[in-house]
Amino acid sequence: MLYNYFEPMDNYDPSTNEYDVIFVGGGAAGRFGSTYFRAMGGKQLTIDKDGHLGGKCPKNACVIHHYLFDIAVELDLARILDDKKWYPKLPTGTGKVEIVPMIEDYLKGRDEAYDVMYYQSKNQLNLEFILNREAEIVDKNTVIVDGKTFKTKNLVIGSGSRAAIPNVPGKELSGVYSYSDFLELDYEPKDVVVVGASKTGMPWASFFNAVGCNTTMIDMNPFLTAFNLDDEIKEYIIDGMKLRDMNLMDNTTLSSINGNGHVESVTVVRKDGSKETIKADMVFVGTGCIPNSEIAVPLGVEIGGSNEIVVDSHMKTSVPGIYAIGDVTGGPMEMWKARKAGMVASKNILGMEADLDITSFPDFLHTTYEITWVGMTEKEAREKLEKVFVIMMPIKDYPGHCPIPLAERTMLLSHIHPGLNGMQKAIYDGETRMLLGAQHVGYGAKDSFQYLDHLIRNGVTIDEMANMNELFLNPTHYIQLSRLRAGMKSLVDLT
Amino acid sequence: MLYNYFEPMDNYDPSTNEYDVIFVGGGAAGRFGSTYFRAMGGKQLTIDKDGHLGGKCPKNACVIHHYLFDIAVELDLARILDDKKWYPKLPTGTGKVEIVPMIEDYLKGRDEAYDVMYYQSKNQLNLEFILNREAEIVDKNTVIVDGKTFKTKNLVIGSGSRAAIPNVPGKELSGVYSYSDFLELDYEPKDVVVVGASKTGMPWASFFNAVGCNTTMIDMNPFLTAFNLDDEIKEYIIDGMKLRDMNLMDNTTLSSINGNGHVESVTVVRKDGSKETIKADMVFVGTGCIPNSEIAVPLGVEIGGSNEIVVDSHMKTSVPGIYAIGDVTGGPMEMWKARKAGMVASKNILGMEADLDITSFPDFLHTTYEITWVGMTEKEAREKLEKVFVIMMPIKDYPGHCPIPLAERTMLLSHIHPGLNGMQKAIYDGETRMLLGAQHVGYGAKDSFQYLDHLIRNGVTIDEMANMNELFLNPTHYIQLSRLRAGMKSLVDLT
Repeated sequence: MLYNYFEPMDNYDPSTNEYDVIFVGGGAAGRFGSTYFRAMGGKQLTIDKDGHLGGKCPKNACVIHHYLFDIAVELDLARILDDKKWYPKLPTGTGKVEIVPMIEDYLKGRDEAYDVMYYQSKNQLNLEFILNREAEIVDKNTVIVDGKTFKTKNLVIGSGSRAAIPNVPGKELSGVYSYSDFLELDYEPKDVVVVGASKTGMPWASFFNAVGCNTTMIDMNPFLTAFNLDDEIKEYIIDGMKLRDMNLMDNTTLSSINGNGHVESVTVVRKDGSKETIKADMVFVGTGCIPNSEIAVPLGVEIGGSNEIVVDSHMKTSVPGIYAIGDVTGGPMEMWKARKAGMVASKNILGMEADLDITSFPDFLHTTYEITWVGMTEKEAREKLEKVFVIMMPIKDYPGHCPIPLAERTMLLSHIHPGLNGMQKAIYDGETRMLLGAQHVGYGAKDSFQYLDHLIRNGVTIDEMANMNELFLNPTHYIQLSRLRAGMKSLVDLT
Repeated sequence: MLYNYFEPMDNYDPSTNEYDVIFVGGGAAGRFGSTYFRAMGGKQLTIDKDGHLGGKCPKNACVIHHYLFDIAVELDLARILDDKKWYPKLPTGTGKVEIVPMIEDYLKGRDEAYDVMYYQSKNQLNLEFILNREAEIVDKNTVIVDGKTFKTKNLVIGSGSRAAIPNVPGKELSGVYSYSDFLELDYEPKDVVVVGASKTGMPWASFFNAVGCNTTMIDMNPFLTAFNLDDEIKEYIIDGMKLRDMNLMDNTTLSSINGNGHVESVTVVRKDGSKETIKADMVFVGTGCIPNSEIAVPLGVEIGGSNEIVVDSHMKTSVPGIYAIGDVTGGPMEMWKARKAGMVASKNILGMEADLDITSFPDFLHTTYEITWVGMTEKEAREKLEKVFVIMMPIKDYPGHCPIPLAERTMLLSHIHPGLNGMQKAIYDGETRMLLGAQHVGYGAKDSFQYLDHLIRNGVTIDEMANMNELFLNPTHYIQLSRLRAGMKSLVDLT
């Protein structure tokens, strides 16, 4: 490491400083909130109990998730092209591709990522922060760190969230992991059961599967119910997982984790009440997160039914002068929300009224595919509107193979394995001609969905879409497919 | 193939039909122009001498280019991780990864892609077209196909372009290829010289290099001069090619191709006048394209100095009632231009005044990286404007390694080989706070640059960017980097 994150407390002289705001927690929310506050000219202090800024994202959440996803996609391609072209024959089960060395690589890079965030925060953003020390909150104007008392006008809690582990017998056995301790894995699992087909469970299950583990994914609900996707998109995703030999059990509840010291199996209950026992030397739990609101309880702020600090759209808690941001305020526990919440809190503290809008947002999910979506589904649109117009690829009811690549990274596959090359659709209001929503399965569309979200909010029409300049082969074909219909006064589906 | 593209001419009864427009050429321009015309309710006929619609894009240009790029990226990763993790040891030189089988796969998929375009054009878009037959243009209202005479009110020429081969001794030798005959390759080259560091030359050279050929790329100018990129981005790209052991010779002119029947070497002249002979069993020429305007010469339309049909922004030639669209009208020979030109011609024919704007557009280039850019460079902005604000990653002058992934597909590398993980910047007007331009080296940004182009045209500001909802880890960090500065009244560079 380049930097010593244990700076002596002597560097801080609280007696001469009253802060405008103290951020407790320097994760995504706290760091971006602090930055915005500082950029507006305010005086802030940010305190984190961990030795780094950025919170769990670089530590054990977003970044490791994406790292494993990248590996899963590479392994998936190698398995599909198994021993063909320049691809090796990959093993499964015992002697499969090893996970522990991947974790070692990751941890090496993580220290360097912490360094970058430290450097940026200190040298470029001029933030004031204390790491590696617990903040003792005395009252909303007083925080003690390592015996020193810091006074502040406002307090912002951004203490994050932690993995929720289902309360079942055997949950304390060794071999039971969540994202939060996955990096401590020190053996090579062969039979993995993933509990929860969530935004965490799905990519981890696909990773274990691609690595060569026998992988079962269970969920108490039908798969993908929580995601705003149309049925044919859901089918494509689930078919993709089945094709890759994942054992999928929806409508299935975890009953117990069994073993003697280490996990040996799990017992599950199907919807019809029947029990089943599945062999497992690892259980990965992806059943959501609980807000870390405990730190704020003594302050008397209102706590909600999911353990979250209740806030309004200004990020104000029930106690004046105390704000809360990020995961600790409950779902959606997303990066954009955490960062923007920090920004919104800072603006409001400095008297610039600002609201956080969480009513709609673009979203994504990883299996071995990257699935992105924004706005209304076709189903939702047809329920609400008279005239709905849809474009879609591949063509429904097309009698042959469709080798047209519908995503990045599928050129090689699309010519050999049509059907593995993605799926996409866009939904328009046939009356106003405005774009309502879009869905994409494949790769390379995530970045553009950020802008599509903005464009949809601003009422972009099919005629404007048709007039944009595509970069061919674009992974989303929305511009050119829109152009194929935009000449029509009364739009006819292109599906 | 599902369809017979040699439909009997009996299916057409020209005596009963006068067309509003005949499109000569059913490539990107002609097909999209026809579609828009049809969608607006007009009566069109499209004629192509090839047996498929879509022109050279699916035949031998865009699609094969992207197919080879996808392979190059995969091979590049395998070579970097050479024999590590699950990657095999890849050979170079003799016995290298074979190209001919890749071409065979491609050709198999190509027929199916033709089928899809045929099906879509006929069944979904209701186009009227004749394939596999030459259009004999008698005058602007009369076209003869296979002995049958078709009358039309307007004529649109979309006859495309062909590879320009430098007129040097030896250009007729076997082993000299361009994109247009690359798919006929029937041997495995070992020593390849690519002539022209163009949008075609670059990706092909990177492909040959990744496959394991000894690869030299020559260009008469300094590399990347034709592309609207800042110097540090150019350096990053060129360093990337050097790191991968490409032999780069800029300011170098091809003097002759030498051999006895088959290519054995090329002779080049450096800027200082010195000559050099380079061993080669293949020469790939990527020195641009010439418009196929010959077909229009008898009509008396004005032909420009680059063999292009001269058109105004309505796609009108110098002869009333004759329009020209796509590559035959000269550069930029881009997909968006071809398709939009078709649309613009159709609108104007039907009396809806429309202009084609080619003054600015997003663009991309493939090496083993995908490089995307839009709008002004920093250099250009600083020349024109008083206050310019720039954000950039990785951080300039950062004293350590930056393992932050700055592109898709680099998670695996960024933790092991920081420096191979991309580069990006965005340029804002410090006065109006509007986004002026952006540049990205990596993968996964191409789709979003289409929308960034639209947003820039519509004056998007840093404050709007900061308020968007990012999908983390987004390959471009523009939203979050903008957010780190947006709080400032007077913007300070974040580089």
